[in-house]
Amino acid sequence: MKGKGSRFERDLIAELWKNGFAAVRVAGSGLSHFPCPDIVAGDGKMFFAFEVKMRNSLPLYLSNDEVENLLEFSKSFGAQGFIALKLPRKKWKFFKVEDLRETIKGYRIDEEIYATGKDIFDLRKLSFS
Amino acid sequence: MKGKGSRFERDLIAELWKNGFAAVRVAGSGLSHFPCPDIVAGDGKMFFAFEVKMRNSLPLYLSNDEVENLLEFSKSFGAQGFIALKLPRKKWKFFKVEDLRETIKGYRIDEEIYATGKDIFDLRKLSFS
Repeated sequence: MKGKGSRFERDLIAELWKNGFAAVRVAGSGLSHFPCPDIVAGDGKMFFAFEVKMRNSLPLYLSNDEVENLLEFSKSFGAQGFIALKLPRKKWKFFKVEDLRETIKGYRIDEEIYATGKDIFDLRKLSFS
Repeated sequence: MKGKGSRFERDLIAELWKNGFAAVRVAGSGLSHFPCPDIVAGDGKMFFAFEVKMRNSLPLYLSNDEVENLLEFSKSFGAQGFIALKLPRKKWKFFKVEDLRETIKGYRIDEEIYATGKDIFDLRKLSFS
């Protein structure tokens, strides 16, 4: 599972570079006691922190801890925090925390939320606006 | 050697957080075919990319490739690139590429250059100016 996760993260890294963002994978995000995302990216104007998820199907559930970790890092670093979600045979989709659906224990991306997700071109547009 | 390098990098990460910068270690910087530094940090205003080095004594030699990799990443990401150098019983010192001494094959930090190095408080000041 770790290897599979890394492969998807590398895939997103390549996608980000191709679209004009310098991107790096974060080492040992699970081990550090400082908040940290899976990927950090920037293009000189905009900076992004990504929590990377891949699922075979929706919904995707996120714990409060995961979401708070992303928000805390993003705020300290000066990045926009996004959940990056890969579904089979779909392009990467990106979600801000405020766009997620809250559940009792955390957050959820269901079909309806998924349909509102941004793609990588929307991220580029953020940088030009 | 890899483990020792990681330990020093984690030490610098902690130092950066303590001084108000969100910082992450970059995964597999040697493996990626994209340019990437050892550490990326930011505080909402300034963004830094660090190539991390530890030596028992000076001079420190850097290859053209290492330096170009740092410059290329920093420019694409929108970060200030620094060489972070740890000597025994000394605090971290930070050097911009333009402050290094050029050699035939690359760059060097000798005693004279070392004396001009910035400390972590200088990095903070950069962020406030």
